[in-house]
Amino acid sequence: MKDVSSIKCEHLISSMQLIAHHLESVAEDLDKESIRNMISTILEADSVFVMGAGRSGLVGKAFAMRLMHLGLKSYVVGESTTPAVHPEDVVVTISGSGETKSISNLGKITKDIGAKLITVTSNPNSTLGNLSDVAMEIKGRTKDDTGGYLERHMRGEYSLLTPLGTSFEISSLVFLDAVIAEIISITGASEDDLKSRHAKLE
Amino acid sequence: MKDVSSIKCEHLISSMQLIAHHLESVAEDLDKESIRNMISTILEADSVFVMGAGRSGLVGKAFAMRLMHLGLKSYVVGESTTPAVHPEDVVVTISGSGETKSISNLGKITKDIGAKLITVTSNPNSTLGNLSDVAMEIKGRTKDDTGGYLERHMRGEYSLLTPLGTSFEISSLVFLDAVIAEIISITGASEDDLKSRHAKLE
Amino acid sequence: MKDVSSIKCEHLISSMQLIAHHLESVAEDLDKESIRNMISTILEADSVFVMGAGRSGLVGKAFAMRLMHLGLKSYVVGESTTPAVHPEDVVVTISGSGETKSISNLGKITKDIGAKLITVTSNPNSTLGNLSDVAMEIKGRTKDDTGGYLERHMRGEYSLLTPLGTSFEISSLVFLDAVIAEIISITGASEDDLKSRHAKLE
Amino acid sequence: MKDVSSIKCEHLISSMQLIAHHLESVAEDLDKESIRNMISTILEADSVFVMGAGRSGLVGKAFAMRLMHLGLKSYVVGESTTPAVHPEDVVVTISGSGETKSISNLGKITKDIGAKLITVTSNPNSTLGNLSDVAMEIKGRTKDDTGGYLERHMRGEYSLLTPLGTSFEISSLVFLDAVIAEIISITGASEDDLKSRHAKLE
Repeated sequence: MKDVSSIKCEHLISSMQLIAHHLESVAEDLDKESIRNMISTILEADSVFVMGAGRSGLVGKAFAMRLMHLGLKSYVVGESTTPAVHPEDVVVTISGSGETKSISNLGKITKDIGAKLITVTSNPNSTLGNLSDVAMEIKGRTKDDTGGYLERHMRGEYSLLTPLGTSFEISSLVFLDAVIAEIISITGASEDDLKSRHAKLE
Repeated sequence: MKDVSSIKCEHLISSMQLIAHHLESVAEDLDKESIRNMISTILEADSVFVMGAGRSGLVGKAFAMRLMHLGLKSYVVGESTTPAVHPEDVVVTISGSGETKSISNLGKITKDIGAKLITVTSNPNSTLGNLSDVAMEIKGRTKDDTGGYLERHMRGEYSLLTPLGTSFEISSLVFLDAVIAEIISITGASEDDLKSRHAKLE
Repeated sequence: MKDVSSIKCEHLISSMQLIAHHLESVAEDLDKESIRNMISTILEADSVFVMGAGRSGLVGKAFAMRLMHLGLKSYVVGESTTPAVHPEDVVVTISGSGETKSISNLGKITKDIGAKLITVTSNPNSTLGNLSDVAMEIKGRTKDDTGGYLERHMRGEYSLLTPLGTSFEISSLVFLDAVIAEIISITGASEDDLKSRHAKLE
Repeated sequence: MKDVSSIKCEHLISSMQLIAHHLESVAEDLDKESIRNMISTILEADSVFVMGAGRSGLVGKAFAMRLMHLGLKSYVVGESTTPAVHPEDVVVTISGSGETKSISNLGKITKDIGAKLITVTSNPNSTLGNLSDVAMEIKGRTKDDTGGYLERHMRGEYSLLTPLGTSFEISSLVFLDAVIAEIISITGASEDDLKSRHAKLE
């Protein structure tokens, strides 16, 4: 193990720059028609249910919390007081691969119930993507992301700067927070409106 | 309410660009000595406990999960099988304001126990910051972030593009994932090592 | 360590009998006026929030889930989409000692907001009990519980048959499920009504 | 709706007595060989993973917490820092019907990994029961439970005194706490040992 007192933190800084760079690239490549479908489906639904496994599940919870702040009825699948899904509801899933077994099983049940299904994914041609009314693509990490601005010796370590699903998870969180920003502009909510619904007991 | 079918998604795109821009600015302003203290404290601890309220708590969970993938003993305060904290442990708190009441109470108990305390915060001169062995500052949103690259009409809506603590929460998630990248480079872990510890039941 | 293949499971059986015996004793000693106050406060509230630490928190979640099945608006403090508490709401806390620090702090905030506070506790003369509109006493374990029906050699091991708060936690779960039974008889809900609200995605 | 101020709380009291009566009956009918297999499997495992859906999941969390207090390595499936399951581990599932879809899918994965599987269930001849190394039967509610000690007019309302899975959930919680009592007698742990591992931050 290296001596920590001598590290220059360059992997840390590069990782943050890489993510920032990747987010700009994701923003450019978003399909606007899918965004409009996603937002109108959410605003027309009676209740919004959110689900995902592991860190994608945490991204879902962060999104569900903001929807509640906006005054929408939102629930996280698996939490204590989450009720039954009805045909008038929408279920939003977050899955990088679109193939997470437990989530795609619940996606099938969602469609059997007759509710709308939205999947935020890097892989729209997946089990979940194909089941969904809206498959919202978040571009995954590619070789191009390493760009010219990163030191040459970084190239080989790309995956370790954003290991496993890190890149997708952060991109989908930032995207979903940006969906909140767009909904705020549509509904005319103010920051005070949001604050008034923020949990007082925490 | 505006008609969703006609929106150009400019708030959404601007919000993502704003976050990307902010992340680069955060990365530049990080204090490297604090990072080294934070990483060495984590690597020398017996166990790492993570806590935060609301969305900051979710950021903490995402970090704790990656520490587990790296093979460190990590726990989230409040989860079912989280044990007692001992003096050889470190507690990492995430709090934008550094003043979240429930978290600063637990910070005091942490110091009474004699364990190390690290706080990731935008406000190092806060109750939690002052209690901490390492107060890791994540620069908050400022007027400057709006930069010149955003349309003029966006300026007034800054807070609604990243409402409440959004900017801090995303920045601290990206920072903590970058800490993971740095630890990977220090310990020489491979992505396969991480995968082998990733939950199989989810 | 004893050889497991030869155990007669008598501690296990005694522990279950002890709990059964204790539950009958708890049921006899309940204060009916407090029960009526508790139920009317819950039925008159706009929303019901539930909280507790550790295993008492799990008991609270089980109660909140059933309230949702009954069609009441119920939330668990600390879950993702739990909104702000208002004066028209009631907060139900579960705390054996009535002195759990984090919970009594939130109890104070509840009263500052002006919402009703109900505490299920073995110790009504406690910080939480004294703060509460209804302090619902659940009799704790006493020497008498060991009764004559348990083998003489069991007497000395009383606390290890139901260690820590086990006796209170089970008693308060059974009591709160019995509150649900009483509410069902008051409102005339059917089991099918409950089933229709039971989560379909789990 | 009935007037709450005039209720005599008889459904509540009957419900608690019914549960107490049922617990004694469950205790009598337990298969001791299955208990010995269950306990030796748990004590021989490297780590114990616990899972269940809805309220059965809460029962699992309460059990996992006590296993941690006893000094065993225990995890709840789905919590943040729960690692991968290995062949040396045991997974304990709680499912009244033994047919909960998501849980039986994870049961299959458990057996594919080669870990041991224990199911606590009212229905040992179920998908989960048949998959399991130990199918621990907890007798479900039957007509006989209503016994002679309950008023005649209660008989017809049996299911509403313990609606949905209430009877199984409480029985399995009390049973699993009794397993803890038996393990304490086997390992010779003291209540102080348990207290020393109880979370200090909660």
